[in-house]
Amino acid sequence: MMTTLSDMNEVWGNSDLALARRARVFSDPTAPDAILCFDPANVAYLSGYASMSSDMNPAYRIGVLATADSARLIVSAGDGPAALECICDPSMLFRYGEFHVVTAGQNRLGAARPAVADFGAAVRDALDSWDPGRQRRIGIEGETSDLVDGRSCFDARPLLRRSRLVKLPHEIAIIRYCLSLMQRGIEAALDAAAPGVNERDLAALVSAEITRGGGVPRSIAVTSGPRAANVDAFASGRRLAIGDVLRIDLGATFRGYWGDMARSAFIGLPSSEQEQCFAAISAGVEAERQVIRAGITASEVFAAAIAATRDAGLPQFARHHVGHGLGLNITEAPLLALGDHTVLQSGMVLCIETPLYRETWGGMMTEDVVVVTENGNTPLTDLSRDLRTCGGVPCSSIA
Amino acid sequence: MMTTLSDMNEVWGNSDLALARRARVFSDPTAPDAILCFDPANVAYLSGYASMSSDMNPAYRIGVLATADSARLIVSAGDGPAALECICDPSMLFRYGEFHVVTAGQNRLGAARPAVADFGAAVRDALDSWDPGRQRRIGIEGETSDLVDGRSCFDARPLLRRSRLVKLPHEIAIIRYCLSLMQRGIEAALDAAAPGVNERDLAALVSAEITRGGGVPRSIAVTSGPRAANVDAFASGRRLAIGDVLRIDLGATFRGYWGDMARSAFIGLPSSEQEQCFAAISAGVEAERQVIRAGITASEVFAAAIAATRDAGLPQFARHHVGHGLGLNITEAPLLALGDHTVLQSGMVLCIETPLYRETWGGMMTEDVVVVTENGNTPLTDLSRDLRTCGGVPCSSIA
Repeated sequence: MMTTLSDMNEVWGNSDLALARRARVFSDPTAPDAILCFDPANVAYLSGYASMSSDMNPAYRIGVLATADSARLIVSAGDGPAALECICDPSMLFRYGEFHVVTAGQNRLGAARPAVADFGAAVRDALDSWDPGRQRRIGIEGETSDLVDGRSCFDARPLLRRSRLVKLPHEIAIIRYCLSLMQRGIEAALDAAAPGVNERDLAALVSAEITRGGGVPRSIAVTSGPRAANVDAFASGRRLAIGDVLRIDLGATFRGYWGDMARSAFIGLPSSEQEQCFAAISAGVEAERQVIRAGITASEVFAAAIAATRDAGLPQFARHHVGHGLGLNITEAPLLALGDHTVLQSGMVLCIETPLYRETWGGMMTEDVVVVTENGNTPLTDLSRDLRTCGGVPCSSIA
Repeated sequence: MMTTLSDMNEVWGNSDLALARRARVFSDPTAPDAILCFDPANVAYLSGYASMSSDMNPAYRIGVLATADSARLIVSAGDGPAALECICDPSMLFRYGEFHVVTAGQNRLGAARPAVADFGAAVRDALDSWDPGRQRRIGIEGETSDLVDGRSCFDARPLLRRSRLVKLPHEIAIIRYCLSLMQRGIEAALDAAAPGVNERDLAALVSAEITRGGGVPRSIAVTSGPRAANVDAFASGRRLAIGDVLRIDLGATFRGYWGDMARSAFIGLPSSEQEQCFAAISAGVEAERQVIRAGITASEVFAAAIAATRDAGLPQFARHHVGHGLGLNITEAPLLALGDHTVLQSGMVLCIETPLYRETWGGMMTEDVVVVTENGNTPLTDLSRDLRTCGGVPCSSIA
C-alpha cells in the first residue's frame, strides 16, 4: 500500500471526487435534470461530504440537490463550517436551524445564505435557487416526497443503485486507502496478541491505527476463544489463551466509504481440527479469488466457494452468502449468494469471505476485498492470508 | 474515577440494568402491559442490548417487546450470538433472516426459536408468544404500526421520554464510566500535544483509550488553529503550532450510553485575547455549575450562562443552548435553551457548555457533564477545567 493520505488529498479534492461521480450518474440516458437525496450515503456520493454531525445524531438531517455540475448541500447550521471546508463554495451551502458561529467574509460562511428555520425550508430554498421556474425534472429517493413542494419528480433510486454498483478509480483508491488503515490495525493487533493480552487492548491498537490515518473505526470486532463465534460483537476483557482462535473482523470508513476485512490467527499452535477448518475456509476464499471476473454471476461465485470449502475439509459448511458489494454502505449489491444472478462487471468492489461460526467452539474467517476486472480480480489488500500463529510460536513449527 | 469496567460488570449485569429501567417505565400509572420498540435507543433502554450489527447497518433492524419482567429481543440471525451473550435467556430471542452458526444446546442458541423469514414475522412471533389471546394493551413508538398485526395499541413515546428524562443510579454509573474513558483520552492527547504533532495523531490516542475501556469512539473532533471553529469536524493532518487553540470535543458510547465532553488547550502561551475568551467561556460553564439544581428551569440555566459569559469578557457572546440532556441519545431533553422551561429534577444528566466558534480565528470550549441533585449538581468528570498549555509551556508562566 503506497498510497498515503497526503497522496490522496493531493490527487483528488472532495469536489473533484463528487464531480466524477455525478458525471457517471448524469451520463445515464434516464437521468433527470437534478437529483434530491437525503440518505447519508447518497448525499456523500453526490456531494463528497460525509457528515460527522448527522452520523452522530441523525436528527441533524442532511440533503443534496445535485446536477451534473453542481451540488447544493443542505445541512444543519452547526454542520456548516465542516461542510464548507469540504465543498469550498459557500453559494452551494443551505443551512437550517440555529447555531452561532462568528463568520468571516468572502469564500467563507459569511458569504453563504443565512440559515433558515427548518430542513424543509432549506430544501425549498435549494430547489428555488436552482429552478425558480419549476420547469425541470427531479429524481428523488422514492415515489413522492413532501419536500419537493409540488414539483414533478420520479424515483431515482434505480439510477443511483446502478451508478453506485460499479466503482470509479477514485472510489477504489479511497476504499484501498481505508483498507490499508485497517490492515495496519490488524498487523498491530496480531503483533501484540499473546496469552494474557485481552481483546480490548487489541481493539484499541486497531482503533488507533484507523483513526491516525483519518478513518473512522465503526465495527471493531476483536473476539477470541468461544467468543469468536459471536459474529459482530464488541471486544471484551477476555484474555487470550493458548489454543484460542483470535478473530479480528473490522468495519471502518474513510470519506464515507467502508472497508470490511478480517483475519484470524492462532494463539500457540492450532489443533489439527483448527488447522483443518482454517484450510477449508481458506480454500473457499481462494476459490473466490480464482473465479471472480467480469461475466461470471454472483451465484456462480457462491457455488464455487461453498464447494471448495466443503471439499477442503468442511463437508457440512453452510453459509447464506460468501461476500457482498462494498462502498458508501457496508453491504451493497451484489450479494454473492445462491439467489443473486447479477453478472459481475469490471470495477465492482467485492468482499470475499467464508466465515465459520460454531457456538462455544469459536469461529474463524479470512475476509478480503477485490476489484473485478475483465480477466479476473485485483485484491485491495496485501496482508497475507496464510495461517498465522501469535504469542511466540513460529509458523515454521507447523507441519 | 475509581470505577473500572470489571467493577461495572460485577455490580450490574446487562439483564439487571434493563430490569431496573423497565421497573421505572412500567411503574408509571399510564403504562401499558407491554411496549414494542424499534428505535435502537429505546431497544437498548428496555432490553440492555446495544447492537454493533444494527449500528453498522441499520438494515439489520432490531426490536424489543418489553414488559415489567421480560424483554423479548428481535434481532437479525447474524446478531443472535452477540445478543444472547447479553440477554442470556434463549427463550427471549426472536431471530429473522438467514445466517449460519453451528449452535450448541441448552441455554445456547440451539435452545432459541429457529430464525423466521423476516423482521415482521419475528415481531409477530414475539407478540404471539407473549399474548396469544390478543387481549393485552401494547404501547408503540407512534400512533399505529403495521407490525402489531391489528392488535390494540397506543403511542408510548411520551411515557418513554418521561422515563428516560431522569436517570437511575446505574445509568449514571454507565455514563460516568464512559466519560472516564473519554477523560483518559483527553489526558493522553493533551500530554502528547506539542508544536508539530498533527490532529489525527492526537485523535488516535483518544480512540485507543476509549476502545481499550470497552467504549465506542463516535465523534472524535480534534481540531486546532482555524479548524477549531469547525464544530463537529474530523481530525485532519494539520500540525499544531505555537499560538493555536487545540479543541478536543468527544462523543463516545458505552453500552449504548453517550458521553459528551470537551476541553481546549493552548499551544504555547495564549494571547491576551485568547486568555480573555477562555476566561469568559469558563465563567459561563462555572455559572451553570453554580445554578443547576432541582427546581430551576432549563431556560434559567441558559440565561445565567449567557449573562456570565458576556459579563466575563465576551459581551457579544451568542448561543442557542448551553447544554442538553444526555443518555442513550447524544442529545436528549431538556435543552438548556431560552425556550425550554422544563423544571430540572434530581437525576437528570446534563452536558454543560458555552462554546465559542469564530471562523478563521478558531474556537474553544469546555464541556462537562453533571447530575442534577436536590441542592445542586455533581460532576461526572474530574478533569480540571483550568486553563492549560501544551508543548512545554508551564501554566505557572501565565500571569
